[in-house]
Amino acid sequence: MSIASRKEVAELAGVSEATVSRVLNNVGPLKEETKERVLAAALQLGYTPSSLAQSFARRRSGNLGVVMPYLPKTRWFSTYYFSEILSGIGSKAREEGYDLLMLFRNAEEPMDYSELFKMRKIDACIVLGAKEEPGELDSLRRLKEEGHPYCLINQHFEGEAFHEVDADHVEGSWQAVRHLLNQGFTRIAFLNGPASYSNSRDRLTGYLRALEESNLPLDDSLLFEGNFSRKSGVIAAKEMLPLLNAIDAIVAANDRMAIGLQQGLQELGIPRDHIPAIVGYDDSDAAELTTPALSSVRVPFYELGEIAVTKVLELLGCSPSETSSSSQVIHIKLPTELVIRASSKIMNPKEE
Amino acid sequence: MSIASRKEVAELAGVSEATVSRVLNNVGPLKEETKERVLAAALQLGYTPSSLAQSFARRRSGNLGVVMPYLPKTRWFSTYYFSEILSGIGSKAREEGYDLLMLFRNAEEPMDYSELFKMRKIDACIVLGAKEEPGELDSLRRLKEEGHPYCLINQHFEGEAFHEVDADHVEGSWQAVRHLLNQGFTRIAFLNGPASYSNSRDRLTGYLRALEESNLPLDDSLLFEGNFSRKSGVIAAKEMLPLLNAIDAIVAANDRMAIGLQQGLQELGIPRDHIPAIVGYDDSDAAELTTPALSSVRVPFYELGEIAVTKVLELLGCSPSETSSSSQVIHIKLPTELVIRASSKIMNPKEE
Repeated sequence: MSIASRKEVAELAGVSEATVSRVLNNVGPLKEETKERVLAAALQLGYTPSSLAQSFARRRSGNLGVVMPYLPKTRWFSTYYFSEILSGIGSKAREEGYDLLMLFRNAEEPMDYSELFKMRKIDACIVLGAKEEPGELDSLRRLKEEGHPYCLINQHFEGEAFHEVDADHVEGSWQAVRHLLNQGFTRIAFLNGPASYSNSRDRLTGYLRALEESNLPLDDSLLFEGNFSRKSGVIAAKEMLPLLNAIDAIVAANDRMAIGLQQGLQELGIPRDHIPAIVGYDDSDAAELTTPALSSVRVPFYELGEIAVTKVLELLGCSPSETSSSSQVIHIKLPTELVIRASSKIMNPKEE
Repeated sequence: MSIASRKEVAELAGVSEATVSRVLNNVGPLKEETKERVLAAALQLGYTPSSLAQSFARRRSGNLGVVMPYLPKTRWFSTYYFSEILSGIGSKAREEGYDLLMLFRNAEEPMDYSELFKMRKIDACIVLGAKEEPGELDSLRRLKEEGHPYCLINQHFEGEAFHEVDADHVEGSWQAVRHLLNQGFTRIAFLNGPASYSNSRDRLTGYLRALEESNLPLDDSLLFEGNFSRKSGVIAAKEMLPLLNAIDAIVAANDRMAIGLQQGLQELGIPRDHIPAIVGYDDSDAAELTTPALSSVRVPFYELGEIAVTKVLELLGCSPSETSSSSQVIHIKLPTELVIRASSKIMNPKEE
């Protein structure tokens, strides 16, 4: 369904846009023939300025779009990361009278945001789990250029001025490594997430900064990569096995991978008091339940979701030109906080 | 937004409906003045038969509604129960080309399903976390009467023939109690959820059935109620404390409450080998992470979500009269399965 513009009506009727307005507003003297030509053209194109089209064009769906990644059979909703952000988004959206439209992004097919807004499927959107990939970047650039209200959560694109709400992962990762260094650990392995996520790159920055401050060189053999799943933590445990004597401690980029590491190392027969100190990331529910309980970096996911809703609804009140103006780019960074538990304490394997 | 009818256009232009059709379809000889009057009236009323209004009236939104409970600040998305069901719904919906519209139900204000369908916000809907309450029941009855495609998950209303997809909680609960009885436990406490949920009532039925089969009387003092939160498990631990010598084992209606019980009893200073055998319910991720690992009843939540989507989309293909006909009521019950871990084994407190 397309909504014609006044310009298209003018072209079809062979008159000026001003004449279209005069006919439609019934202003001033006009030839009957001109009037009819304009009315016929307007009708033919579905241009109905007085009611339907305009009210349609103006009306809001009452839906807030939430763009999620999609992979067949992957339980995104079941991850602490997405579920907490969604809880924050859902709660705030509900308070503000909005329903959430969950949109699943296909890896191959970038989102067509224009279409979503044009079809009034959504009034604003929040983008989760965005990645540094060409298709996605183009899609987000168009979203921005068209001046739709949007906000990214937890993803920064270098050199782009997108609206974003993020947590300070440089700080979070720095705190985790700093804590381990303070306890005398120096050979600290790092199990990071994929580099296509800015939060992985931020964590690496924090890791490197903490090492530098202690005048420790970077040892590439201590850098590992997983995909944030528990399974990738189990796999990393196997990869670390040959080096285990040279590893004092491990920082993982989320709790799932940290728990996978704990379990993987146990399954490989490593006695509990030989398992390196481990710090996870996210401070999920599970961190308190593992044995030993997992030290972790707390990220205010729920609050990220809430703030993103507040911000996109503020943008929704703005005109498109204001929204796309770079002087008003939203750039919020919430603090992270290290929570210390038994998994990262020295020589205390019995503590639970 | 109102969509004008041909009749209204005819009235405003002072012509017959047939004339309106002839003008709009440009059929036969017509006076210029009549033509113009009709076109002006159509335009004024926003009557655009050929495109906008009709396609709007006929079109589908492409949205599948998912009705969730809502309480301020409650993290529904973060519970294993909802997150797994939503993962199943989301995955299947995406496969079928649908987006999910999350609708948050207000406890005081029942859902207005008619409005959601009339406004083309959704094409079909799945109702989660429904409760036996008058407002909700009325709302669901109207939904059914109007013949919209819908399906309830995990809630049965006694005496109503609603479309529903459920798991066999009588069987699940029976298995849990049976397992404890088989190990020689006879004083089995039951921490159930609120009775307004049919799945709580089903679990009680399974509990009672297992006791009866063993010729054990029901002892009301062993029945406790929580609200499915971890905190309510901690509270139940305190309530059970005075009776603890008379309790051999505990069945909880979900893992969160079971974990709250474990933690609550530990915090009350009960030594691990004096904590009764515990069986949880849901078999969430957390069940494997607690110490001792939690026995639990596995519920195919993800599959419940997938099947509900398949079923409502099948209904969507039906005419409203078929949908509301009681001969075709959907009533699916998936099996549950007891997973035995250390928490419910006899005298094996060191096992993890």
